[in-house]
Amino acid sequence: MKEIIARCRERIEARDSEVLAWKALDWDFVDRQIDKLAMRPMEERGPLFGLPVGIKDIFDTADLPTGYGSAIYERHQPSADAAAVARLRAAGAIILGKTVSTEFAYWKAGPTRNPLDLGRTPGGSSSGSAASVADGMVPLAIGSQTAASTIRPASYCGIVGFKPTQGLISLAGVKALSNSLDTVGVFAKDVAGVALLSGVLAGRPSLMAPAEPGSPPRLALRKFPEWEKVASSALDAVNKAAALAARHGAEVTTDAVPSAFAGLAEIQTSIMACEAARELAHEHRCHFDALSQPLRDLLTQGESISAATYDDACLRRDQCVVEIDSLFGDADALLAPSTLGEAPLFEDGTGDPVMSRAWTLLGLPSITLPCGTGENGLPLGLQIAMRPRHDQQLLAIAAWFEQTLATTP
Amino acid sequence: MKEIIARCRERIEARDSEVLAWKALDWDFVDRQIDKLAMRPMEERGPLFGLPVGIKDIFDTADLPTGYGSAIYERHQPSADAAAVARLRAAGAIILGKTVSTEFAYWKAGPTRNPLDLGRTPGGSSSGSAASVADGMVPLAIGSQTAASTIRPASYCGIVGFKPTQGLISLAGVKALSNSLDTVGVFAKDVAGVALLSGVLAGRPSLMAPAEPGSPPRLALRKFPEWEKVASSALDAVNKAAALAARHGAEVTTDAVPSAFAGLAEIQTSIMACEAARELAHEHRCHFDALSQPLRDLLTQGESISAATYDDACLRRDQCVVEIDSLFGDADALLAPSTLGEAPLFEDGTGDPVMSRAWTLLGLPSITLPCGTGENGLPLGLQIAMRPRHDQQLLAIAAWFEQTLATTP
Repeated sequence: MKEIIARCRERIEARDSEVLAWKALDWDFVDRQIDKLAMRPMEERGPLFGLPVGIKDIFDTADLPTGYGSAIYERHQPSADAAAVARLRAAGAIILGKTVSTEFAYWKAGPTRNPLDLGRTPGGSSSGSAASVADGMVPLAIGSQTAASTIRPASYCGIVGFKPTQGLISLAGVKALSNSLDTVGVFAKDVAGVALLSGVLAGRPSLMAPAEPGSPPRLALRKFPEWEKVASSALDAVNKAAALAARHGAEVTTDAVPSAFAGLAEIQTSIMACEAARELAHEHRCHFDALSQPLRDLLTQGESISAATYDDACLRRDQCVVEIDSLFGDADALLAPSTLGEAPLFEDGTGDPVMSRAWTLLGLPSITLPCGTGENGLPLGLQIAMRPRHDQQLLAIAAWFEQTLATTP
Repeated sequence: MKEIIARCRERIEARDSEVLAWKALDWDFVDRQIDKLAMRPMEERGPLFGLPVGIKDIFDTADLPTGYGSAIYERHQPSADAAAVARLRAAGAIILGKTVSTEFAYWKAGPTRNPLDLGRTPGGSSSGSAASVADGMVPLAIGSQTAASTIRPASYCGIVGFKPTQGLISLAGVKALSNSLDTVGVFAKDVAGVALLSGVLAGRPSLMAPAEPGSPPRLALRKFPEWEKVASSALDAVNKAAALAARHGAEVTTDAVPSAFAGLAEIQTSIMACEAARELAHEHRCHFDALSQPLRDLLTQGESISAATYDDACLRRDQCVVEIDSLFGDADALLAPSTLGEAPLFEDGTGDPVMSRAWTLLGLPSITLPCGTGENGLPLGLQIAMRPRHDQQLLAIAAWFEQTLATTP
């Protein structure tokens, strides 16, 4: 237990002055956790016993300040842990510290750099969680996703990011951005890591050790309109992965997305704006001057969306969720690029979330695996999604892909 | 503005030593709000200008302690207002104080008594909000509903309670019990009051002044299995209201509930237990000994529910929501008793929520209107529900009923 913490600390001390992934660290608090865990009876140790986890700074922590990525909450100290943090601690995890979030998990970037190229963004909004895992500062971290805030940074940083089915992990004590979209997400270097973490958070042991799929999966590339914006290197990477899967026995089909499912990215954008204007009503009323311009614009936009537009968007989503089989067809899983391309330059922002908007809207479980590199040698990602509540099967397919991608030249 | 506050204060000082509806009151804070509001330019006064509102003590308030109905949070002082509270303040409301909630909005009653009979319960979990409005201590109050926590106490106390469509009002800063069921609810003495309050909270001016229905409504009594437990006086009251509506031109049909919709009360119970075990993970880990036995039992039960059972329950709900037309048939609105009967004795608990479980599960907007009295002369309620997102139409039908019930002997 002490060895792994010492390695994390060493790496953080060597690198975090440049990567800037951490918002709050307290080594005394870490030592106190180690001492307490050492006294736990063997039978109560839990599946994460002694493993350090980084916590995105939008999750409340009773022992560490929680800033939600905003100067408004700079000295804020919650009195209780978020439910997800409590579950990690109950499972024996060590809370290593708080990782940098964009402002309220929306747009405005924190200081964090991409550890693979310090001139580039790690992606957002779970910037510090993705960067710290990618840089080897911590093996596991948690974040969230409302549009693409888990998949995008994991992909830009070359690690595995997993967003379970919406609603599977409690959001209690997590700063809300958009209640019907917000989802807890997890980061690790491999599928086994995200499986372990999500199993603990969801209270589902079945997720922790996903079984091998009985037969090679049936996969589909459903080309949503947003695919037109994807860089050719990112399309190539996904096509290569699909071809490789086919060589290993998978059935792969390619089609345009059914027309009922086109336009979902725009619907996600409307719902998110409308709900953000509600969730952040206190900050709007009391701290408007302390909000970034993009966030002010989001709140203003959200308030201008009519009730009818919002209601139609929600009805459309409900309908698509119930008719999800017509999106998947015969396929078990959908494949897509995780992002439009490599991580943008730091000064250009945290990147475009468009490649995850539709799937997040539908509440699908989705995962990103490192998959090839782009023009600048930076990582690209393969995004895989399944039907809602098929999280265990998604992790199994992801493990199959991980092995296939790793063992084939 | 000062006059209405003085009247509230007088009533509270006269009565609250017996009714015990308030958890936190701070008259200096009220005076500060009055002073601030007096300086607001006329054009910014807002639709609730100068109106006092009671806030259930599971909503965070930056200026008043927030105890969530549990000794664990006895001295807890949040640093921000819940989003709903912020919207009330932006609309010019005066936060009069915090009202008693059951423990974490679940089972264990607080001290509040039914103002119509101090030997009886006001219902729960929004006990203090319902009792304070019923007793004339405050004209408006907010609460929440996860099973029946708005409809039931409003009915027991003889006032109007309205639970809008699930998801219409932000839950940010509200202590979570069950994220997919929790809904903000509102209390007033008439339909106009709940319309005003819900319109502000949802940011939907269209709700504030519901139009008269163009023609008499089409109404249906769909007899869910739980109707078998309803007291005959409560059934009579609803049947009389339906007959009266028919005399005023409404079309009324009576049927058993379609089989696809039977069993929803049990599904609601499973989802609530499972989600409560997640949401309260921190309290479970750190304060288990300070939880009441019924809450401990709920958390234990929730953790024993398998992933498959929970997933099936959620899928069943999703399916019923999309097929909601087969529940309503040709009807605009459904009618039902609001509760099994009159308010039980105080020592027998806050009453059975079963009459609202199915409709809450489906996210339907529902309202209770005072409707007759039972064996002991205590109020009964008429519960009306409409399709999701038909909140404005529901308020219009409720206003029509209110007038019809009031003007007919």
